[in-house]
Amino acid sequence: MDPSLNPFIKPQGVVVVGASSNPSKLGYGVARNLVNSGFKGGIHFVSQRKGNLFGRPVHVSLQDVPDPVDLAVLIVPAPAVTSVLKQCQERNIHAAIVISSGFKEIGEKGALLEDEMSRKAKEANIRLLGPNCIGLLDTHYPLDTTFLPPPMPVQGDVAFISQSGAICAAIIDWARGQGIGFSRLISMGNQADLTETDMLTAVAEDENTRVLTFYIESICNGPQFVKEAARISRIKPIIALKAGRYESGQRAAASHTGALAGQDNAYQAAFEKAGVFRAKSSEEMFDWASTLASCPLPTGRRIAVLTNAGGPGVIAADALEAVNLSLAQLSPITIEKISTLLPPAAGLNNPIDMLASASPQIYAECLDLLLSDGDVDGVMVILPPPPMHSAEEIALSLLSVINGSSKPVVIALMGDQLIKNASLVFRKARIPEFRFPERAASALAVLAARAEFLEKVDQDLPRPSNLNLPASLKILEGISRGTWLDQSSTMELMENYGIPVPDARLAVDAKQAEEIAAKMEFPVVMKIASPDIQHKSDVGGIMLNIRTRQEAEQAYNILISTVKGSRPNAVLEGVHVQKMVPEGQEVIIGSIRDEQFGPMIMFGSGGVEVQGLKDISFKLAPLRESEIEDLLNSTWAGKKLHGFRNIPSADADVVKDILNRLSWMMMEISIISEIEINPLRVFANGAVALDVRVKV
Amino acid sequence: MDPSLNPFIKPQGVVVVGASSNPSKLGYGVARNLVNSGFKGGIHFVSQRKGNLFGRPVHVSLQDVPDPVDLAVLIVPAPAVTSVLKQCQERNIHAAIVISSGFKEIGEKGALLEDEMSRKAKEANIRLLGPNCIGLLDTHYPLDTTFLPPPMPVQGDVAFISQSGAICAAIIDWARGQGIGFSRLISMGNQADLTETDMLTAVAEDENTRVLTFYIESICNGPQFVKEAARISRIKPIIALKAGRYESGQRAAASHTGALAGQDNAYQAAFEKAGVFRAKSSEEMFDWASTLASCPLPTGRRIAVLTNAGGPGVIAADALEAVNLSLAQLSPITIEKISTLLPPAAGLNNPIDMLASASPQIYAECLDLLLSDGDVDGVMVILPPPPMHSAEEIALSLLSVINGSSKPVVIALMGDQLIKNASLVFRKARIPEFRFPERAASALAVLAARAEFLEKVDQDLPRPSNLNLPASLKILEGISRGTWLDQSSTMELMENYGIPVPDARLAVDAKQAEEIAAKMEFPVVMKIASPDIQHKSDVGGIMLNIRTRQEAEQAYNILISTVKGSRPNAVLEGVHVQKMVPEGQEVIIGSIRDEQFGPMIMFGSGGVEVQGLKDISFKLAPLRESEIEDLLNSTWAGKKLHGFRNIPSADADVVKDILNRLSWMMMEISIISEIEINPLRVFANGAVALDVRVKV
Repeated sequence: MDPSLNPFIKPQGVVVVGASSNPSKLGYGVARNLVNSGFKGGIHFVSQRKGNLFGRPVHVSLQDVPDPVDLAVLIVPAPAVTSVLKQCQERNIHAAIVISSGFKEIGEKGALLEDEMSRKAKEANIRLLGPNCIGLLDTHYPLDTTFLPPPMPVQGDVAFISQSGAICAAIIDWARGQGIGFSRLISMGNQADLTETDMLTAVAEDENTRVLTFYIESICNGPQFVKEAARISRIKPIIALKAGRYESGQRAAASHTGALAGQDNAYQAAFEKAGVFRAKSSEEMFDWASTLASCPLPTGRRIAVLTNAGGPGVIAADALEAVNLSLAQLSPITIEKISTLLPPAAGLNNPIDMLASASPQIYAECLDLLLSDGDVDGVMVILPPPPMHSAEEIALSLLSVINGSSKPVVIALMGDQLIKNASLVFRKARIPEFRFPERAASALAVLAARAEFLEKVDQDLPRPSNLNLPASLKILEGISRGTWLDQSSTMELMENYGIPVPDARLAVDAKQAEEIAAKMEFPVVMKIASPDIQHKSDVGGIMLNIRTRQEAEQAYNILISTVKGSRPNAVLEGVHVQKMVPEGQEVIIGSIRDEQFGPMIMFGSGGVEVQGLKDISFKLAPLRESEIEDLLNSTWAGKKLHGFRNIPSADADVVKDILNRLSWMMMEISIISEIEINPLRVFANGAVALDVRVKV
Repeated sequence: MDPSLNPFIKPQGVVVVGASSNPSKLGYGVARNLVNSGFKGGIHFVSQRKGNLFGRPVHVSLQDVPDPVDLAVLIVPAPAVTSVLKQCQERNIHAAIVISSGFKEIGEKGALLEDEMSRKAKEANIRLLGPNCIGLLDTHYPLDTTFLPPPMPVQGDVAFISQSGAICAAIIDWARGQGIGFSRLISMGNQADLTETDMLTAVAEDENTRVLTFYIESICNGPQFVKEAARISRIKPIIALKAGRYESGQRAAASHTGALAGQDNAYQAAFEKAGVFRAKSSEEMFDWASTLASCPLPTGRRIAVLTNAGGPGVIAADALEAVNLSLAQLSPITIEKISTLLPPAAGLNNPIDMLASASPQIYAECLDLLLSDGDVDGVMVILPPPPMHSAEEIALSLLSVINGSSKPVVIALMGDQLIKNASLVFRKARIPEFRFPERAASALAVLAARAEFLEKVDQDLPRPSNLNLPASLKILEGISRGTWLDQSSTMELMENYGIPVPDARLAVDAKQAEEIAAKMEFPVVMKIASPDIQHKSDVGGIMLNIRTRQEAEQAYNILISTVKGSRPNAVLEGVHVQKMVPEGQEVIIGSIRDEQFGPMIMFGSGGVEVQGLKDISFKLAPLRESEIEDLLNSTWAGKKLHGFRNIPSADADVVKDILNRLSWMMMEISIISEIEINPLRVFANGAVALDVRVKV
């Protein structure tokens, strides 16, 4: 962590500039929370009027504030912020939280004010959090510079970084009801200086934080975020809720790749690369957070379900399947032992249905047996209000079994009043409990995903040795931006990066065409060569299946005369002769440069139907081994490469290699904005890029 | 409703057989609940020992029970049930709820007991609910024959019919915490006599029930359920939660249709046909139920979002998009009026962000303006704990606006303790409130779906006039079950139902082949004709693109000799000659007879990749206009028929017609178990079934 962030994290003294004794003012709320938080450093207030607040003097000038003080919280009108920052500098304060609003968020006038403030802060060597934020709090240090309605959040080990201030009050209040405690909460505001990545780093170093949660609307610096999050996620789990999924989803559709590469795909690919778990809702984010903070990780995806009722067991089985967990196959010994404990009508196939009569002791003994089974990686216990006992008794009986195991156990504790006490028992023991099996299954799934993530040793794929960057840059010299590269340059570029293209040679008269064709193996294909013609087939500029010398000679003349007829003004350089390409599978490989995150690589089913079938997947460059595997495994186009029914298998390795080469090309040649190979034809051995388009 | 069900619904007197004074026995629970329910009819107890229970006499024999009594609740050991039923008959009781377990659910021995019980009950003219159920309750009549832990559910207008008894206690308790009240609850048990459809009918007639909810594991009689539910759903909404989604998902894969037609697709298609809304979770089921019970229906899908904070507004916009609702385009007048109420930094583009300072009055005035906008069909109000006011004040200010509008309003009331009082205000006023925007969006979506369902006037498609059933039955006479029909019978069958197939004629020697080909237009295709060969291309039995008389003659001889070589034992009848079929789009149309629900019709992308792409959709026969539209609109294969980029459009009408014909064929010819047309080639005008397989 940058040491200049220290005063935000462990301030020695805090001054509230704009403190107020009027309870309807934010300046009152901040003063109240700071005092009530139990902050042990200096607490100081500055306001326009001298006075007394919460038993402390109110100063009229920052210069009057005594030591210690190293953090200022500003709740003054926006136009006054810059001058207060100057006073901070004079008082030797180099960290400020600007709660004041009226900046970028209100439009152009505010944006100017914000720019000026940022500049002055930089000159004065002051770091800023905000503006337009609600501050930050730390339940352990403790410290609270927010104006959130009391009480302060429950102490815990989940940190919450939020790009929406307003959501914080709701989340803290809701989380309290769920028994979730926070270590830190940081509201980012407009991010005039400190960014989400700065705070991610700072919070990750906090020893009281076990899991980081993150409400994101947008990311300032994509590559920096991905790099830092990837480093941190190896140490502590990061969970993100990305809002604005459907905003500006579509780009201008210059290519299929462009049309399909929505902004949300870029975020998705970035989160995957960074090892950030992406939650679908706030509820899911905090369900995952509390589970990751308290549960041991499983070594696999085989889950046993223990229930006292059939219906919820079936729902649990559905829910596990839906999140890609599997029902464990219990060992015969486990089943045998469990059967001796239960009535004859009990269900002994996972889910284990103990029937409604199950006592606390039976619950505990069965759970113990399930956890001892080597084929079980985790257990979901289902506990609706039992007819014969209290849920609390059952909860108490389970504690020592769960705490004694190295495998995760989550509880589907179904009901409300009748399970309230049991809920308190589990929460106190830090055992995750959810109202429905669906949420419990989702929690188990994130544990499995975390375990798999930590196990994966995953490196970026190396740069292939035979990439010719200098020659490629030379090709692109002087090409004007926003244009599509001509075909021969495109082919050359591909060859420089080892991406196979059809062997095509230019013939400038009919005789030469005949000779070139004869040297190649018949049949050949002939195509008009013209810098002015993009879609050759539209102008009669392609002839297929040319089988003899004589046909080749004729074809040259026919092509030239046809195109002269259809496009009299086009410059015709001659005719390209190339070998007919054999049959094979066809895929699309594309890349587009995302403004936020850099090159995205796309793979999937190609052809003209790519936008209809949407059988595609995206990753960010540079590609890793696992990401390339994912591209292939998550699409039908990729699965099909291994063969399907009467479709023979094709060369998946060459596809992976080409994906990697394309990724390197995009990383190394920054003026390329878009590439699309559609289709790449893939044979049993090898592949060839039949149609390539490159945008500069 | 069948009058024999009357005593279950409005009994005059109830006797508990197996009542107990031991609080750990179910017989105690039933007696306690019946007494506490406030049931106004006769309450009687029978047990093996005379005595007194809850101030009432306990009789040793049913014969001693005085009038009125018309419903018996049995909690005696399973083997004793039949003899108690005999006593019921003698006491002139013709309705019994059998709570006792130990029947079908424990295996073969119990199943025998259950069969005997059913038989005896039928003989004695006694209707049965159960066995192995927890009984039923009615909060209005009132009546409670269950042993559920007290208190009884809150009175309300949602009925709950459940095939799991155990889930009832959890659901009732959870629903109480959510402020959801029940009209009736019925636990179905093993359904030895009364089925889910019987009870659906009975509950639908209840004037206190506005919405029916249904926990389903399986359905006894599919067509009866679909018919009855379709009738009822026009009057009252039905919501189902189907458990066991992933059970026996795959069938033996004789055809693509068979491999893809999972049991869950059949339930999905049945619910769609019946107008039953299918919830993904218990939570969603009851969110929908309480919303449908209390909200007016919208006339469209255009939703306005009113918020005091940006973040939740963005989440709400995402959530609306995810459930296929749209953000309303507000009229300029509305925006103008709202702008005068709000500070300059407020967001005036839907979502309307009033900023954190929004007062109760501002909330109410803005909501009123949104509801008055003709381009707004419904509103989601977002209410996190407001910094300056209490959520309760805001809730109170909104009541009259919401109640005064004919448009639906749902609240995303975010938090826990800080919004508790506001929650009570809304619940009392029957205004749906949810903790997160996602649930609120889902509730609005079900209202829109309900409105659209009620508006749709939808008839089964009529039987095309030129279907030749008698001739078709004749073809199938004597065909042994479980076999695939031979090609010429298959073609004849298709022709009988007006499904176009290639015009193919049998040639039995080379000369005849030449003549037939000459009469058709060249080019033609020739295929070996043999009852023993299914996959002709595998044995060299197909020749394409035959252009002359001479080629036709040669082709006959080549085909015969090739196949004689590859399949020496096959009976060769000759060669089929048919015209080459022009290019076109290709789709798959299939049907399989579901055990539960009858013929399912499948439509989608055909070819060999159908199982990989899974671009398919299912409906139940008979098809309706809207269902056929759905088949086409929900698949890429169907959308593509309207043309896409350089793919020309194709004849969607003929596809619809063929779907209808296939549906009639399956309905009328019950010995056909499976048909697959893959591909059906579709031209600009017309279509032809290139490959058809029929299983008997």
